[in-house]
Amino acid sequence: MTAFRFDLVATDGRARAGLLHTPHGTVPTPVFMPVGTQGTVKAVSPRDLQDLGATIILANTYHLYLRPGDERIARLGGLHRFMAWDGPILTDSGGFQVFSLAPMRRVDADGVTFRSHIDGSEHRFTPEKVIAIQENLGADIITCLDECAPPMDYEYNRQALERTHAWAQRCQAAHRRTDQALFGIVQGGVFPDLREASARFITRLGFDGYAIGGLSVGEPKAQTYGVLELLDGLLPPDRPRYLMGMGTPQDLVEGVARGVDMFDCVLPTRMARNGGALTRYGRIHLRNACYADDPGPLLPDCTCYTCTHFSRAYLRHLILANEILGAYLLTLHNLHLILTVAREIRDAILAGRFAAYRETFGSAKNIEEDG
Amino acid sequence: MTAFRFDLVATDGRARAGLLHTPHGTVPTPVFMPVGTQGTVKAVSPRDLQDLGATIILANTYHLYLRPGDERIARLGGLHRFMAWDGPILTDSGGFQVFSLAPMRRVDADGVTFRSHIDGSEHRFTPEKVIAIQENLGADIITCLDECAPPMDYEYNRQALERTHAWAQRCQAAHRRTDQALFGIVQGGVFPDLREASARFITRLGFDGYAIGGLSVGEPKAQTYGVLELLDGLLPPDRPRYLMGMGTPQDLVEGVARGVDMFDCVLPTRMARNGGALTRYGRIHLRNACYADDPGPLLPDCTCYTCTHFSRAYLRHLILANEILGAYLLTLHNLHLILTVAREIRDAILAGRFAAYRETFGSAKNIEEDG
Repeated sequence: MTAFRFDLVATDGRARAGLLHTPHGTVPTPVFMPVGTQGTVKAVSPRDLQDLGATIILANTYHLYLRPGDERIARLGGLHRFMAWDGPILTDSGGFQVFSLAPMRRVDADGVTFRSHIDGSEHRFTPEKVIAIQENLGADIITCLDECAPPMDYEYNRQALERTHAWAQRCQAAHRRTDQALFGIVQGGVFPDLREASARFITRLGFDGYAIGGLSVGEPKAQTYGVLELLDGLLPPDRPRYLMGMGTPQDLVEGVARGVDMFDCVLPTRMARNGGALTRYGRIHLRNACYADDPGPLLPDCTCYTCTHFSRAYLRHLILANEILGAYLLTLHNLHLILTVAREIRDAILAGRFAAYRETFGSAKNIEEDG
Repeated sequence: MTAFRFDLVATDGRARAGLLHTPHGTVPTPVFMPVGTQGTVKAVSPRDLQDLGATIILANTYHLYLRPGDERIARLGGLHRFMAWDGPILTDSGGFQVFSLAPMRRVDADGVTFRSHIDGSEHRFTPEKVIAIQENLGADIITCLDECAPPMDYEYNRQALERTHAWAQRCQAAHRRTDQALFGIVQGGVFPDLREASARFITRLGFDGYAIGGLSVGEPKAQTYGVLELLDGLLPPDRPRYLMGMGTPQDLVEGVARGVDMFDCVLPTRMARNGGALTRYGRIHLRNACYADDPGPLLPDCTCYTCTHFSRAYLRHLILANEILGAYLLTLHNLHLILTVAREIRDAILAGRFAAYRETFGSAKNIEEDG
């Protein structure tokens, strides 16, 4: 844990600006982490990520364990070297993927058995196994195995929480590498009593940081926000808080307003590959015929490579022709936008004007059609 | 034609080094032109092409006419602006694609009727139409409509040649833009009498440069080379010669040895998307299991971004996982290699040591397994 430290630099209301020190560099927070599922942030290269100002990326334990294998990555010098990204990396525990992607899963008190979505082969994750995999991968921040339950099902959440808590203890006991931070995960669906119990249990164990799991998977936004507000009062202020799987511009603003420091989401990169361009207040569907002769950039004031060189008409052509360059250019733009929003949020907190900044997003619909 | 000039700078045997001046810049020859079929060199951006040292790219008239449409590209300011490439561009005439890709084609003396491979709609290319399309696209170098016949069928070639010659005359008469060079195309399959007749007819018309069509489509290599040697004595030395559709490292060396100046080929970019890495003497199939734990670069002495940052094991993982980054990194490497070979050839000619350089390729198999 020696190489890991979190400095809370400034607060503005509940919003926090910090510095997250890791063995591979310091991450200014609030931060958006681009998702590198299979050892690559889809469609872009590490030098692109550097140019975009990404300071930390996420990789998926489930995917890398199945292919190319964590032991292979360890033999090849670890994940940083494997993917040629020498900045900080966070790996999730694989829990979310097992519970959302893998077929034929059977959970018991000791762990979870599942089949690979690639070849149907059978595998088993236990807390100890998931820590071993993440030690092989060698990310700067690793996470405890958790069970992701449907957020509105109380009884399911209550039972899952018992397993998640027992697994957190076992993950903590199993973790050996001192150059990796270990984050605990708070679960409990939309239920205040479960969330509070989870926060108290997990923080009592004591972790380098706290992830908030199981949100934005179908529950009403008001309940998402309610959970975040509750947890803001329960999580220790001197540790980073990571809201898992949420990362639209609005999510960042509203999450930060409730004390969150770290975000990740596949939306900016996935949307790009589907022909969608992110704006601060919504999205542009480039397949729409109205862009066929549009000579303007995606966003007039955007400084990214895509917006300073290419027209909406050209981007639409690339998407319709299924050209890789279309996915690449939209990914660059979408990551540029969300990383820029994260930097703007931090600047606003440091300047004590976060409330005013948040106001500019006030009337925004969340990722709706724009133009 | 004022903006177009070809300076023959040096010769070394039959090998030629030149400078091709166009309205969008000067191209040192011999040159390899990356293929930008649908208005993008597949998987890479214009800034990548610039970084790689590409000096001219090719775009396909057939594809751009069908989608997004040449008139649309004209409205949007022409192809250079559309694809944000401000270097020289050459467009082919669409003939090769119509005769190899489009279904239901019917050729007559006046032109060729075909169906779109995208939506089955019916279209017709005449010499005048193909020039009008290319004037709309606005490339620096455009080409005459030709008919591509199977190279070993004498009677087919004899008849096709009559059409190709009549169409060349009509293309020349139809061409209006003075900021575009027009290249004539020599056809005639593998038959010396037809090739000679074609070269004499087309050079008598007088073009800014001469393309050699209909080769490397199944005929024995010795016959390909025979045609090139024949044409070297028939084409005027003060005009560039462009060997259409050929562009392996060996093709470049052997083509230059027979007086060719310009090359294009989809092989480096297509091979990349299929998981193949180009070497000077063959290719590396990254899907092969032997690379699964290989920590070394594609080529130890290669200076490209891919070889200086990533292992064969990582590249293999990306290809197997069908990640866009795999296609991107292999495309970068393959283009870097073929553009480097073209530069090395030019340097060797300028230094009067082309024969020795060619010797180093002497024992090479043409694009075979390597390692």
